[in-house]
Amino acid sequence: MIHRFAHAAPTLSLALAALPLLLSMPVTAQETPEPATPSSVIAEAAPEEWTAIPAEDLLVMELAPDTAGNARRVVIQLIPAPFSQPWVENIRILAAAHWWDGTSVNRVQDNYVTQWGDVTEEKALPDDLIPTEGLEYTVPYSEAGNVGLTTRSYRTFWQNVRAAQDRSEASYDPVHNRFELPNLNRDIYAQGFGFFSGWPFALQDGLWPIHCYGYVGVGRGYAPDTGTGAELYTIIGQPQRHMDRNLAVVGRIIDGMQHLSSLPRGSGDLGFYTEEEARLRTPIVSVRLGTEVDAPPAYEYLDTASESFARYVNVRANRDDAFYTVPAGGVDVCSVQVPVRPVSE
Amino acid sequence: MIHRFAHAAPTLSLALAALPLLLSMPVTAQETPEPATPSSVIAEAAPEEWTAIPAEDLLVMELAPDTAGNARRVVIQLIPAPFSQPWVENIRILAAAHWWDGTSVNRVQDNYVTQWGDVTEEKALPDDLIPTEGLEYTVPYSEAGNVGLTTRSYRTFWQNVRAAQDRSEASYDPVHNRFELPNLNRDIYAQGFGFFSGWPFALQDGLWPIHCYGYVGVGRGYAPDTGTGAELYTIIGQPQRHMDRNLAVVGRIIDGMQHLSSLPRGSGDLGFYTEEEARLRTPIVSVRLGTEVDAPPAYEYLDTASESFARYVNVRANRDDAFYTVPAGGVDVCSVQVPVRPVSE
Repeated sequence: MIHRFAHAAPTLSLALAALPLLLSMPVTAQETPEPATPSSVIAEAAPEEWTAIPAEDLLVMELAPDTAGNARRVVIQLIPAPFSQPWVENIRILAAAHWWDGTSVNRVQDNYVTQWGDVTEEKALPDDLIPTEGLEYTVPYSEAGNVGLTTRSYRTFWQNVRAAQDRSEASYDPVHNRFELPNLNRDIYAQGFGFFSGWPFALQDGLWPIHCYGYVGVGRGYAPDTGTGAELYTIIGQPQRHMDRNLAVVGRIIDGMQHLSSLPRGSGDLGFYTEEEARLRTPIVSVRLGTEVDAPPAYEYLDTASESFARYVNVRANRDDAFYTVPAGGVDVCSVQVPVRPVSE
Repeated sequence: MIHRFAHAAPTLSLALAALPLLLSMPVTAQETPEPATPSSVIAEAAPEEWTAIPAEDLLVMELAPDTAGNARRVVIQLIPAPFSQPWVENIRILAAAHWWDGTSVNRVQDNYVTQWGDVTEEKALPDDLIPTEGLEYTVPYSEAGNVGLTTRSYRTFWQNVRAAQDRSEASYDPVHNRFELPNLNRDIYAQGFGFFSGWPFALQDGLWPIHCYGYVGVGRGYAPDTGTGAELYTIIGQPQRHMDRNLAVVGRIIDGMQHLSSLPRGSGDLGFYTEEEARLRTPIVSVRLGTEVDAPPAYEYLDTASESFARYVNVRANRDDAFYTVPAGGVDVCSVQVPVRPVSE
């Protein structure tokens, strides 16, 4: 089968692929090595550039099997301190109490969120949850050292991304006779963004985590309520950046996302399943911390301070492999997508 | 049911909702009218601000009914001239020939695309398709007058968006003692963006259409192939802006998107269904131009040169209704989402 509109390995040289753009881009010599792709950069990353995710940072949610009897496991990685820690701590308490067992997925709004929790809204919460009312979602720069953010680390990171521009003609600007990636580190919603300890953050008078695809947040009522952590949602469409700083981002789905994104949409207000659609609510069999799971799954992420990650961001910003004829010249924070993979034994 | 994390009408005053932010944002007086939401701006738009979509710009795709027997209709609006017209013209030819009848949805890649067409890749194409090899995807500014782009219309549009900032304290900057929406009209992938004739475009040495959620493009092989229009995909996750200027955007789904976004993901390379998953391919019963459908569905979009649309963009950029405590201060082009609705008779 021909992979039309493919990410497969290039079969034609860049020179041929770039033909329609001769006027705006110099032709690459035939002997140029094949341009890197996000996949090739990941494949070539050194083993020591990968960081294991501790089992205590994993949340394993088992949904009821699908109609064909297939298991549906969703794995969430919790965000590191100091971000959203009161809610993350509550989530650990709720998981330890097996609180979500028997609850369900109750809302699926297209291009927005899938949300799960207690549909009755009457299930008693554990007594020892941390109060969260009125808490802030942004972390001051002065408290961000824990994830490796310093002025130096930030500058070095973006310098490394630019330095990774070893891919020659892709971003050559013939008008100004220079190579450039003009739109790196630009964000619509903040002064900039960066990656620290494996996570993307927006930067502007502090740091905050971001509502990208597959990221998990805490449902809440009107402020000053900020939610307990018992009601969770994940983004199943375009990023919802207007929710940044308004709701707590507590994690991201690193495995099984399709079990939440491909569910039937609810026809009620905000995508909630109506009572007539009650059968569409997906039962949650169990939610456990990784440390409580027998033979817990193991994952690792590409160290966001590594040389390979800098190269990966660069390649994301400027695809010039055979399928692409016009490199984008930039990449938004959510389109970077930090590589996470199962650890193969 | 409490609509946690809700877009519902505010039930608390902004003054109360904004309490946690007293230090950075002045309190709104209790007598302030309820802040606008995207929904309220749409609801309040005048009838004459809505533009009917001609039936000849609609493509109606009937998928096989779902397992419960429910019909699955997907409606695509084709992009106006001068954008992607050779492919759009081919799509009209293919629809008139009933070419897609009996084909299927063959690829669903999570957070990427759903793609449909002839899985055998052996079905003969109509003889009269327009050759598209090597064609460009960007339209020079000088040819964009057809959608209403002029330097004046562009400036006026963004001036109107800023002028729509009648919502007071939401974007008040206490440090500089001024109101501002600093991040309007900023794009990571181009020098700017705008909305013309109901469509979003990136601007940089010309205009190009954008791969937002639900937008439809043309599958292709390696360049100089640009695809015929017979193989189509739609974005089912985050925007894929790196595909802009590399593939032809020919339309957007304005109804029934959930029938494509909630399909089971394929487990083959690039999300194609494997032969073992052949039963997951969704049969396409028919694809017809709106003009060939009995009792065609009717839709209208909010005129992107209207006052209400400018206000809508403004509100999208700075939600300050009761649910939000920190307005985003900007909006990316894909998060604007041009309002389209069925015409109610």
